[in-house]
Amino acid sequence: MMTIPEISQKLFAAKKAKGLSFADLESVLGRDEVWIAALFYRQASASEEEATKLLEALGLSLDLVPELVSSTVKGLGPIVPTDPLVYRFYEIMQVYGMPMKEVIHEKFGDGIMSAIDFTLDIEKVEDPKGDRVLVTMNGKFLPYKKW
Amino acid sequence: MMTIPEISQKLFAAKKAKGLSFADLESVLGRDEVWIAALFYRQASASEEEATKLLEALGLSLDLVPELVSSTVKGLGPIVPTDPLVYRFYEIMQVYGMPMKEVIHEKFGDGIMSAIDFTLDIEKVEDPKGDRVLVTMNGKFLPYKKW
Amino acid sequence: MMTIPEISQKLFAAKKAKGLSFADLESVLGRDEVWIAALFYRQASASEEEATKLLEALGLSLDLVPELVSSTVKGLGPIVPTDPLVYRFYEIMQVYGMPMKEVIHEKFGDGIMSAIDFTLDIEKVEDPKGDRVLVTMNGKFLPYKKW
Amino acid sequence: MMTIPEISQKLFAAKKAKGLSFADLESVLGRDEVWIAALFYRQASASEEEATKLLEALGLSLDLVPELVSSTVKGLGPIVPTDPLVYRFYEIMQVYGMPMKEVIHEKFGDGIMSAIDFTLDIEKVEDPKGDRVLVTMNGKFLPYKKW
Amino acid sequence: MMTIPEISQKLFAAKKAKGLSFADLESVLGRDEVWIAALFYRQASASEEEATKLLEALGLSLDLVPELVSSTVKGLGPIVPTDPLVYRFYEIMQVYGMPMKEVIHEKFGDGIMSAIDFTLDIEKVEDPKGDRVLVTMNGKFLPYKKW
Amino acid sequence: MMTIPEISQKLFAAKKAKGLSFADLESVLGRDEVWIAALFYRQASASEEEATKLLEALGLSLDLVPELVSSTVKGLGPIVPTDPLVYRFYEIMQVYGMPMKEVIHEKFGDGIMSAIDFTLDIEKVEDPKGDRVLVTMNGKFLPYKKW
Amino acid sequence: MMTIPEISQKLFAAKKAKGLSFADLESVLGRDEVWIAALFYRQASASEEEATKLLEALGLSLDLVPELVSSTVKGLGPIVPTDPLVYRFYEIMQVYGMPMKEVIHEKFGDGIMSAIDFTLDIEKVEDPKGDRVLVTMNGKFLPYKKW
Amino acid sequence: MMTIPEISQKLFAAKKAKGLSFADLESVLGRDEVWIAALFYRQASASEEEATKLLEALGLSLDLVPELVSSTVKGLGPIVPTDPLVYRFYEIMQVYGMPMKEVIHEKFGDGIMSAIDFTLDIEKVEDPKGDRVLVTMNGKFLPYKKW
Amino acid sequence: MMTIPEISQKLFAAKKAKGLSFADLESVLGRDEVWIAALFYRQASASEEEATKLLEALGLSLDLVPELVSSTVKGLGPIVPTDPLVYRFYEIMQVYGMPMKEVIHEKFGDGIMSAIDFTLDIEKVEDPKGDRVLVTMNGKFLPYKKW
Amino acid sequence: MMTIPEISQKLFAAKKAKGLSFADLESVLGRDEVWIAALFYRQASASEEEATKLLEALGLSLDLVPELVSSTVKGLGPIVPTDPLVYRFYEIMQVYGMPMKEVIHEKFGDGIMSAIDFTLDIEKVEDPKGDRVLVTMNGKFLPYKKW
Repeated sequence: MMTIPEISQKLFAAKKAKGLSFADLESVLGRDEVWIAALFYRQASASEEEATKLLEALGLSLDLVPELVSSTVKGLGPIVPTDPLVYRFYEIMQVYGMPMKEVIHEKFGDGIMSAIDFTLDIEKVEDPKGDRVLVTMNGKFLPYKKW
Repeated sequence: MMTIPEISQKLFAAKKAKGLSFADLESVLGRDEVWIAALFYRQASASEEEATKLLEALGLSLDLVPELVSSTVKGLGPIVPTDPLVYRFYEIMQVYGMPMKEVIHEKFGDGIMSAIDFTLDIEKVEDPKGDRVLVTMNGKFLPYKKW
Repeated sequence: MMTIPEISQKLFAAKKAKGLSFADLESVLGRDEVWIAALFYRQASASEEEATKLLEALGLSLDLVPELVSSTVKGLGPIVPTDPLVYRFYEIMQVYGMPMKEVIHEKFGDGIMSAIDFTLDIEKVEDPKGDRVLVTMNGKFLPYKKW
Repeated sequence: MMTIPEISQKLFAAKKAKGLSFADLESVLGRDEVWIAALFYRQASASEEEATKLLEALGLSLDLVPELVSSTVKGLGPIVPTDPLVYRFYEIMQVYGMPMKEVIHEKFGDGIMSAIDFTLDIEKVEDPKGDRVLVTMNGKFLPYKKW
Repeated sequence: MMTIPEISQKLFAAKKAKGLSFADLESVLGRDEVWIAALFYRQASASEEEATKLLEALGLSLDLVPELVSSTVKGLGPIVPTDPLVYRFYEIMQVYGMPMKEVIHEKFGDGIMSAIDFTLDIEKVEDPKGDRVLVTMNGKFLPYKKW
Repeated sequence: MMTIPEISQKLFAAKKAKGLSFADLESVLGRDEVWIAALFYRQASASEEEATKLLEALGLSLDLVPELVSSTVKGLGPIVPTDPLVYRFYEIMQVYGMPMKEVIHEKFGDGIMSAIDFTLDIEKVEDPKGDRVLVTMNGKFLPYKKW
Repeated sequence: MMTIPEISQKLFAAKKAKGLSFADLESVLGRDEVWIAALFYRQASASEEEATKLLEALGLSLDLVPELVSSTVKGLGPIVPTDPLVYRFYEIMQVYGMPMKEVIHEKFGDGIMSAIDFTLDIEKVEDPKGDRVLVTMNGKFLPYKKW
Repeated sequence: MMTIPEISQKLFAAKKAKGLSFADLESVLGRDEVWIAALFYRQASASEEEATKLLEALGLSLDLVPELVSSTVKGLGPIVPTDPLVYRFYEIMQVYGMPMKEVIHEKFGDGIMSAIDFTLDIEKVEDPKGDRVLVTMNGKFLPYKKW
Repeated sequence: MMTIPEISQKLFAAKKAKGLSFADLESVLGRDEVWIAALFYRQASASEEEATKLLEALGLSLDLVPELVSSTVKGLGPIVPTDPLVYRFYEIMQVYGMPMKEVIHEKFGDGIMSAIDFTLDIEKVEDPKGDRVLVTMNGKFLPYKKW
Repeated sequence: MMTIPEISQKLFAAKKAKGLSFADLESVLGRDEVWIAALFYRQASASEEEATKLLEALGLSLDLVPELVSSTVKGLGPIVPTDPLVYRFYEIMQVYGMPMKEVIHEKFGDGIMSAIDFTLDIEKVEDPKGDRVLVTMNGKFLPYKKW
């Protein structure tokens, strides 16, 4: 079971009260909406300036700045997610994880795609047969160091 | 622990013997290299024509056509992957799953990104500070039906 | 262990106090009773209009509208359900999952039955040898996209 | 990980060699195709007569009759299925299990739907917007006995 | 970890305060003491009349009637029980489950013993070498339906 | 997943070939059929004499005596059984485990029912409304020793 | 994660406040210090007399007597303990469990060491190379009953 | 499920063929029978001399010396043992682990009992009311180092 | 999910309020900053003197001394950590655990590195290509005792 | 349970036959012994040149070069290791993981220590009170990228 941190609940409540979308906050902070949503769930850490801007936009007390700036324990969910939207990303890892591994090794050699030096964007692609979700992940390739 | 199907092992061995890359096979089959790697692991199913082309390119017997055409039990790995490259995709789901959920709901309403009506591409972006892996997922948005 | 959301508890308490059945609510909302029960557990999301109708029928404050409209984290239960009624559906998946897979692949090709573009009805079939539960699932077939 | 019994593999190989569908076998055995698929996976047990008919239709030795008639250990899969088609039935149980429980209790009182005195049919409903899978489960309601 | 429902705690507290045993309650309700203990843990549901009798015997408010009458989510414990007394029943299932399966199939054919159309009694058998616990389970045999 | 020991497979094959039931073996060995089934699965250990009688009855080589006499690692199944017949005993433990604990403590004090100094019988009770399975467990009560 | 019962917390707090060791309590109760520590964690049950003596020694209200006398759900910890001291006993079971099984079977035949008719003592053995912990377990051998 | 190493199977087979007990081997090797049983399961490593003596006593080829001398991956069993004899040691850890922790901390301060600088003996104590198993563990106390 | 003890929360809050780093506390206590961080999470135990110094430095009441001095249940996290920083240490164990085992056995013989008689230091190594984390673990080698 | 790849078994057998230590191979390959042990377990990948040198040193066929050069699925062990030596590294992660996280965040900001751009050395430090194992991990700090 997932436990949403208290600070996240405050941020979501204020966002709803102000009627702001993550896209709105994107222009306020100059950060991508996914990163901002990650900050809401405290899966990312803000600078003092970013925290201040966000809290002001949400009409929340600046006393909360330290709660947005600190490093946190990351990873939100159950081991296998039950939520269908999140589960599909688990399924992609289960079904396409090894094929991706093969292609990445072929293109880059032995190593991994960083999930830290990493960005993730989501776009809506309108389509008459049904709109599509476009997820773009961009991570630095890290070759295994030998020693 | 992951068990690689026997047919996958034959395909990989032939590919290595022929010195072919997935990129080479892409031009043979007219399918993306990730999809072809998924076919190798039998996470995807070929048409008879695709199976024939692939087996010919790999110098394998056409008797194997049915083994590439049949539907299979998908999902390869352990519950939590131990391989660092595959794990990073698990980590992305753990850390960014809920933020993605928020942004997708905001953009599209209640529903999910399909992992079936779905494509996945991998590109290498050269970068003097370290090349980058670009993963693009494109899935149809499926709104929850009400009844 | 399952945690029932607070909003669900309020809805169930009001329903019991009003002496309403899900069948009664079906005529109020123009939605199927199973979908309404799913809404009670916040496994489905209402439109503003549906939320208003429901809250009025239950004699609850319209302040709760946003709690019925928002998207939620779905999936209620433990990994393997302990409740005998719910477990039987787990057992059906364990025993008949693969046979269903064979038959669906034979009829439709490689793909899945959507659980999103999906409806589920429950009917009581009276029978002198013991009444029967009739569960009808109707999901769109989604063929695997190739790319 | 799922282990397919050896007898199942023989049955599937013979069925493929004969070019028979489960629908074809339905008319041979006078049993539903899903039940026959369950028999293939040894999740169901045949009578001697059914076993004989099936083996003859498949061109297999009648020495296998006892392997189709005996009771077996049922339940095929991993605890949480990784295969996307089978997983969707797990997801339905996760998302709609409790709502179904509420509706069944309301209609029938405290008890369960039997998964033993139970039938399961699959139909293809053609639809211009995408064909649909219709799954019908019909199980006897079993009220809790008091003592 | 096991969570005891609040209503159970009230019932146990009142029973202790009144100095009543389950055997005493057996004569009040005309139900077996094991069934009554199951009702205490809300693993069984009472009729209004049974609930009233029980609450009166325990000196509790009749406002609690609905909490004893409603259907509940059953199954109390951790996946593998840690309590030694309860564990022994898990051990019996681990050690004797398959032998019982063989004998039941031999006597009855393919099917199961119902745990719903089912009664369970516990008796104390005095014995100079150490008293013995006699557990009698009586469940309807349910043959697998074919279709 | 359950692994059936090789010796068990030999015993079951010989029993089938000889057309013997466990009830038949009961009269040969002077032991209960459930205990004999437990011996088949090597969840119980025979004396040399019992092993000899059994192997003779089954027409198997007496060289197997030591394989029936030795102590073995007991416990056959997966953590949560997937087989419906065996699962029902898991369910009984989940649903009635704590109620049984209460009644046993009330009748005997703090302690457990032994699963070692223990017998288990299965009887078929014919009933026009459906035959019933009668399982009788008889275990020594072991009070907790204080020191 | 381990949940310490409330009564345990009261007992530990009072013991600390009084500056008493388990060894001190041993002389008060005439019970071994390990058993008393087990009582503190409610892994053992006291007689009324023992409970009274203990509460008086700790300066706690005699109203707590029933909380020490009742039978409780035993087993405190996570499935695999994370605490290094407790883990070592798990490790001993992992590494030496099967060797102990062999030796016990050789000395006693098929059966087990009771963990109920059982005592456990801990002594400190001073040693210039480092003091040693001496744990003595004494459990009745229970031979498997045949029937 | 437990996998017994091949070398262990050879050792056990030879021991049975020679009719030797671990107690017999104790006098051959000058090591305790439990340690020897641990060596059989390759949970302990022999010196070349010990390996030679053991293999000679068992009438096995000295080519096996390296297989007894090498360090191995230790820990035999499933996470929670299903075998009743081994399980009781798991139960002791579950029930008495925390009480032992309290008493050890009180006697020694913060630290652990080593399971490496450790011995384990098993004795049979004859008793007219039922023989008893005496297990003596003797491990060095290791205080937590501060730095 | 990880539960941070209340005392830890107090210590971290006070440290933040005072603007102190673990490096600052290192000079106050004469203990390494990692050990102090372990004390904050109550994975280590202080002497009375250390506790007093720490509480004074943090401006907290000396009433908390006993909460820093007592032995605690150690081990903080979920079985597989979800936090990426902590996970990397799990990954190192998964990937390099067995290689380390080989090298340690080769250098020292059969035994382990103690995690109790153990120190752990972290240093920042500045590097123009990206600073590096240097973790130094120093544990006593414990050879397996034979007996 | 851990499965050692076949190639690893060949390498270990040859190393034993040649009487070579990892330290010997260190001078042959010009790589650290831990990295070479990781290569043995196929947790690292060799260049063609390294593979050739290693196979020649071990007297193995150069046909095995591709088996040392290919990228592999990494991560060897069970989820929680049972081997005491490997477990201690799991324990260090459980006990010191969060303290390390605090100190690393304090020294470096939000980010992780790479386990890919990473080296690991093991040294033996002789000590009259018992030799010590010195493990040095050196990983690049990766700050979380913002976007």
